[in-house]
Order: sequence, then structure tokens, then C-alpha cells
Amino acid sequence: MRFSLSIAALALSVACSAALAQQRTTIPASAVAEAAKLREKALASDLGWKITESLTTEVGPRLAGSEADARAVAWAVAKFKQLGYDKVWTEPVTFPKWVRRSEHGEVLGAHSQKLYLTALGGSPGGTVEAEVVRFPDLAALQAAPDGSLAGKIAFVDYQMKKAQDGSDYRNGGGIRGRGPSAAVRKGAVAFLMRSAGTESHRTPHTGATRFEEGLKPIPAAALSIPDADQLARLVALGPTQVRVALDCGYDGEYTSQNVIGEIRGSKKPDEVVLIGGHLDSWDHGTGAIDDGAGVGITMAAAALIKPLKPARTIRVVAFANEEQGLFGGRAYAEKYFKDVEKHHIAAESDFGAGRIYGFDSSAPDFAKPAIEQIAQALAPLGIERLPGKGDPESDIGALTARGMAWGWLGHDGTDYFDLHHNADDTLDKIDPKVLAQNVAAYAVFTYLSAQSDGGFGSAPKEAEPRRQR
Amino acid sequence: MRFSLSIAALALSVACSAALAQQRTTIPASAVAEAAKLREKALASDLGWKITESLTTEVGPRLAGSEADARAVAWAVAKFKQLGYDKVWTEPVTFPKWVRRSEHGEVLGAHSQKLYLTALGGSPGGTVEAEVVRFPDLAALQAAPDGSLAGKIAFVDYQMKKAQDGSDYRNGGGIRGRGPSAAVRKGAVAFLMRSAGTESHRTPHTGATRFEEGLKPIPAAALSIPDADQLARLVALGPTQVRVALDCGYDGEYTSQNVIGEIRGSKKPDEVVLIGGHLDSWDHGTGAIDDGAGVGITMAAAALIKPLKPARTIRVVAFANEEQGLFGGRAYAEKYFKDVEKHHIAAESDFGAGRIYGFDSSAPDFAKPAIEQIAQALAPLGIERLPGKGDPESDIGALTARGMAWGWLGHDGTDYFDLHHNADDTLDKIDPKVLAQNVAAYAVFTYLSAQSDGGFGSAPKEAEPRRQR
Repeated sequence: MRFSLSIAALALSVACSAALAQQRTTIPASAVAEAAKLREKALASDLGWKITESLTTEVGPRLAGSEADARAVAWAVAKFKQLGYDKVWTEPVTFPKWVRRSEHGEVLGAHSQKLYLTALGGSPGGTVEAEVVRFPDLAALQAAPDGSLAGKIAFVDYQMKKAQDGSDYRNGGGIRGRGPSAAVRKGAVAFLMRSAGTESHRTPHTGATRFEEGLKPIPAAALSIPDADQLARLVALGPTQVRVALDCGYDGEYTSQNVIGEIRGSKKPDEVVLIGGHLDSWDHGTGAIDDGAGVGITMAAAALIKPLKPARTIRVVAFANEEQGLFGGRAYAEKYFKDVEKHHIAAESDFGAGRIYGFDSSAPDFAKPAIEQIAQALAPLGIERLPGKGDPESDIGALTARGMAWGWLGHDGTDYFDLHHNADDTLDKIDPKVLAQNVAAYAVFTYLSAQSDGGFGSAPKEAEPRRQR
Repeated sequence: MRFSLSIAALALSVACSAALAQQRTTIPASAVAEAAKLREKALASDLGWKITESLTTEVGPRLAGSEADARAVAWAVAKFKQLGYDKVWTEPVTFPKWVRRSEHGEVLGAHSQKLYLTALGGSPGGTVEAEVVRFPDLAALQAAPDGSLAGKIAFVDYQMKKAQDGSDYRNGGGIRGRGPSAAVRKGAVAFLMRSAGTESHRTPHTGATRFEEGLKPIPAAALSIPDADQLARLVALGPTQVRVALDCGYDGEYTSQNVIGEIRGSKKPDEVVLIGGHLDSWDHGTGAIDDGAGVGITMAAAALIKPLKPARTIRVVAFANEEQGLFGGRAYAEKYFKDVEKHHIAAESDFGAGRIYGFDSSAPDFAKPAIEQIAQALAPLGIERLPGKGDPESDIGALTARGMAWGWLGHDGTDYFDLHHNADDTLDKIDPKVLAQNVAAYAVFTYLSAQSDGGFGSAPKEAEPRRQR
């Protein structure tokens, strides 16, 4: 039995290996050769820069739901057409409209002085004058007894740390997301935080917050880093009264658009390699690194691929309203979940315009040969294969959670949170040469993925929780 | 004749040399030995930092004529007393009061977006909507035909360059001072300039301007560097309308105070070594490098000297309203011109808190031995004797122009114009260790000057024109 069982197992093993061998995804050598030329062409091109310059200059800041949102949509439609995309269309995305009208902060009393702050997206308006209670981090606020901050302003004074992968945004972004609700629960009348930022300028960092169900929202704002330093010093000197006056809040609904451009596939036009970034930005800067660059990089990458007549369709999506809750990505996932298998692989650029240093993918073992080929084509750009490091970025997350395969081209984010969501996110912060490297990386990844002779594992699955960027 | 003349000249020369030898100013060896100990003590002290921290935190921004001006005066009086100065008093300084209430800028039309700008001190209020005409520098504006800018906004787009000695402030500050009047003469309805700054943040640099007699002032403002970049790009794309709305202007007079503290001289109490900085600041930052540091450095230096019982009196002046026209320095000069010979030597710290790298003095040849001794005592701090490089700084200029001898302790100003007159001039920009080096330099210079056995050449003279910092 033993012998005959072994024979059977051996036979099965041989059969499976044969089957797997048949399914192993690889990329034709001719495509790999084309990709090397594409890479050099992209490195020498300023197309990504020109697109990013055009968006950030001609549209400027483009808060979701603002007058500039509509101008951004019109800009993206026109730009796709101008770049020669085969098909350009829009798909509606509806969300609650949040507006910022004015915001002021000041220390009252003997040390009277202005504080540079900005309302968090989703904050209600309101004017509060109250004493500040400082907490070094979110855990300290959460540990305060319920009701202990009655009539006070909670101030969470955590300083985010720099990291290439931006990993401490876990803390900075976590305070922004969960701090206001924690403050309400303790009885606070307003919430202040040290900006989730890593520089030291008078440019407070905004970003979305959300109050938990059943809690009455309170004015919530972020101080610039030097202002947080100052407030911490003043609180250490004695009781400190602060006035926070925010005029902002939700005002009905708005319908924006995901703007989509396609380079039609020459052999498998119904299979799609999806790349993109988000079209909206916060209102203080001009959304250069967040995420004008992502739009510029991916629009340029597909345009540079077009003359190569890619086998599969390249679809570039400029997503609507990422900033206030991934609305564009979620609308896209809802519409296209039924087609998840037709989404060959996806990659989003939404982590700035730093040098791309790492490559990873969700691709299962059978697609590793193709992934390895892509990694080799990226290596001359200084990009390392970093298995297990990657993560689908922002808008594509809703569909990758439902089974879409993804690639990750990791930007160096060491300085990303110097500029993220503040007024300093402007074009001058982007290095055109580094941006060209980004475009080259996206072009190589996208083209080679489109030419593969097998899939990367996209298949429908139940939604799973994911972390939010 | 020739021979006898030569004999006479030789005789005169010998006589003069003898006289000069008698008058040569030197410093006793015991004082030089004390100075070395003082230097090390100052390097190890955080007193300068503590004073600067106290002023910038507890008073914060202190625009001349504002509510905070009075708080700054009270702070300085209290701080001198707390530091154990022997005599503390104030002297009135009256000036036109300029107030900033609000300021807004925006691009109108298809590329509608906010512009970060700030009114120049001295600008009138007003709201203007007009087309922008860009000039690369002041000379280009000056070369435009009179009346050619009727109904337009003049935009001078000169980018200041970094320099250790801040020398390109000649251009940046020159545009701020003379640009608005030039714009009026060409018919412009408003004046915009690229900030006189060397960074790239959304923090516009303010500073005083002055309209020439007989010209009708127009709203005048500085754009942040990224906003100047943006406006230049937009103007290059086509006619660009901008709205500038300033609510600011002169509002009567205000009387502030020069605040003066003295360490009384043990041997020649009526002879004064004068050091100081200015107490006022612009309103956006907290006046840390301009000029909280100067106040902190000089207050600390004299306090550290006190236990040594200096031979001459050390007088520290915290000057009123330097920023809007050297009012404190001019009031001081007017009051004390009659005592110019009693002002042994003076040095002001008003160029930030960078490492002091150079030393110079107006002292004539007969005082060179003492100057050389001071230079040797400063050398261990990394300070080089740089004959001909120095310049009396800001407030003491009115009295040095009338014959007061001066010393110069030159701060490295490479980054000074990153922060000068903008919101980012905050305490975090000062390195406490470098500030201690500054204090040590001032302490050594001040103490050795006070101990010299002769003068540094102070003697009344007619006023001469000087350049304004």
C-alpha cells in the first residue's frame, strides 16, 4: 500500500508540475528588449513634468467639491485627449461636500499671540475659548478619564518621525483620524493636534478626520509644528487659554468624476492594466506631490507606451476625492468588481515624487517569473525587488481588497511628510529628473505587465479590511 | 629746501611716532586671561538661549506699535532686573504706527487660485483687480516708460541669492524699498514682488517700504517664493488678472521705549561699552533670529561679565522699532550724540543667530594692538579677523555715523534670509550651541573692550550717509 501510494503521489506530483509549468507567467524576450528602450526614452522625457506642471499651475489647488474640482476634471479630460489616448471618459463620484471658509487660532491673555492652525477635513465650524490640556500622544488622551476634559481643549502633541516608507504616518494619521472622537468622549470642546508632519514650518497640515457614530463633532484643527512647540512651552509655563475659530463644515453633496483614459490593447483589449493617481488635492498647496505627480507620472507612462501598441489595454484613472475618504476608488471598485478578473494588474502612484526605490507585487508564485523579469528591467533605475514590503496605494485598495492583483513601485517618502497636505506642496518641491525616473519605472512596469503571457492572479474575493493611507 | 624739508618731515615723523606710541591702546594681560575663562563659561551657559526663549515664547511677535510692543518693553525691563543689572530704564521712541489687519491675494479667471502674499510695512490698504505685468528685476521696472503701467499691477520677480554675508539683500531689500515708488511712477495701481528671501516656502517675507515724497502710495505686497514662481508661470501662459486686497496702513502715532540695562563700571563708570539688539519684530514670526537672538545674546553677555566687575560700564540697549525705520537707534543717537566720546565702542547683534565667523572694527591704527588682542581671544571660537569686512549693524548706525567706534561680530547669514521677516522666524530655527558661541563672542569682545587702557577712536563727526540693513 505504501509502495502503490507512493507511486500514486509521484504520478500526481508530476501531473501538477506539468500543469503549473503550463501556467507560469512570463514575458516575451521581445517585450523585455522593448522595455529597455522605453525606460531610456522615459528617462529622457519631460512629459511627466509637463503634465504635473500644467495641472498644478493651471488648475492649482483642487479641493474635492470646490469650483476647482470641476476645472480639474475638465483639465484631465482635455489632457488625456491631447496626449492621444484612444478613449477618454468620466464616471460620477458622489460625496458629502466639505468646505473651508476661514480658520483662526490665538493664545489669549498675557502671552497673546496668533497660532497657525488649519481645520481638519470633516471638522465642523465653531468658536471655542478654553484652556488647553496637552497630551504627548493619542494613548495618553485615550487614557484620560471620560468627562475629564469638560470645557477644555484637548491638544495631542505627538511629533511624527521621518522614514523612507512613511511608516510613522500610522501615528500621525492615526491621531488625526481618531483623536477628535477620543477628545469628544473625554468631554473636550475642541481638538488640537501637532500637525502630522516632519518639517518645522508655519504651514499646518490638514487632512481628513471622521467622528464616530453617535458622537457630537467638535472643532478639530492641526497646529503647525513651530506652533505646537510654542503651545507646549506656554502650557508648561501655566494655564493657557486658546481661542479656536473655524468656519467650515459639510454643505450638501457634490458629484465629481473619475476621469479615465485608455490606450487600447492590440491583442487583448478587454484585459486592463490599471495605473493612476488622484486628481483632487487639499486646498492649501497646489497638490504637486499629492497627487499631481501621480497623475503626471501615470498619464505620461501610458502615453510613452502607446507607440509600442501594448497587447493589453492600459487604463489610467485620475481618481476623484481620494483625500476625504477614497470616494473615487470606492466608486470604481463598486462599478468594476464584476470585472475584477479583467483587471490584469494595477499600480497607483500616491506617495509623492521621490525616487522609486522598491518594487513588489501581490502576484502569486506562478507569476513570479514575470515579476522577476519586471524587477530586472527596473533594476537599472536603482529599484530593488523588496518582497513583502509593498502595499497597494490608496484608490486601488478598494479593488485589490476584492482580488485585483497589484504592483507596488515605492517612492522614497523620507521628505513626503514635510509637504503632505500643507501649503508647501507646490511644484518647486519636485525634481524633474527624479520625476522622469518615476515615469520610467511606471512605464516599464505597465508595459511589461501588459505583454505577459499569463496572469498575475486577479480573481474575485471577499472584501478584507485594509489600512488607509 | 628740499633737504631741509626732508629733515623737518623726518623730525615730525619721529615726533608723531612717539606720540602714537604713547596713545597705543592695549588690553592688560590679566584681562586677557579673564576673557579666556569668560569665553569657556559662556560656551557652557544656556543663558542666551533662555532669554531668547522667554522673549519669543512669552511675548511672541511684537510689531512696533502693537499691543505686544508694550508687553515686550515690560518684559525687557523685568528681564534686565532679573538678570541683576545695576540700572534699568527706558527712553521714549515715537513713530508713526502702522497696522496690518488682513491681506488676501488671488488669481482671477480660468486659473483661479489663492496667492500667499503679505503687505509690505508702510503699504496703504486697498483692493485692486488688475492685470499683472512681470519684470525680472528693479532695473527693468525702472526702465519702463512713465505711465506705461496705467491700471496694471507691477510684479518684480527677482530671486535673491544666498550669501554668508547676506550681500544680495542689496537687491532684495532694494526692490522692497524702491520698487513701490517706481511702480507708482509708471502708473501702476499695485505693486507685487517676489519675497526678498532665499527659501521656497509659502511664507511671504514682509519688511518696510517707503514711498517717495509727492507720490500717491499704492498697495504693495510680497508674494511667497512658490507663489512668485506660480504667478510667473501663469503670466507666461497669457494675460493674468490678480486681486490684491490689503487692509493695513498708518494709524496715528505710538510711543514705545528703548529699554536699557547697565552693568556699572568699577573704574570708569561714565565710559560705556554699548551692545544690544532690537526688541521689536515683524508680526508673522516670533522674531527669534530677528532679533530675539540679538537681545538674548547681548543681555546674556553682559550678565556673564558682571561678576568680573568690568572697568567701564556695559550698556545693553533693546532698541524700539528698528524694523520700520531704525526709530530706536535714531532716538538714541539724538539723545546721546553729545556723549559720543563717552561711548567707548559699540556692537550690535542684528543678523541672526548663525555662527559668528568674522570680527572687524572701525578702530584706528593706534587701537590696533587692542583689536589684535581681542581677535586672538575670539580665535578659539572659530572667528577670523576680517579687516574691511565689517559694518555697524542697524540701530547703532545712527551714532557710529556720528563718530562712535564700532566692533563687528559677523554672523554666518547663509540661511538668514530663509527666515527673515516671515512666519518661520521662530525659536526652533536657533541652534542653542551656536547661540552660546554668539554669546561667548559678544562677552569676550565686550569685556576686553571695557578693560582697554585707551580708546577706540570715538569722536564726534558730521553725519555721513550709510546703508540700511
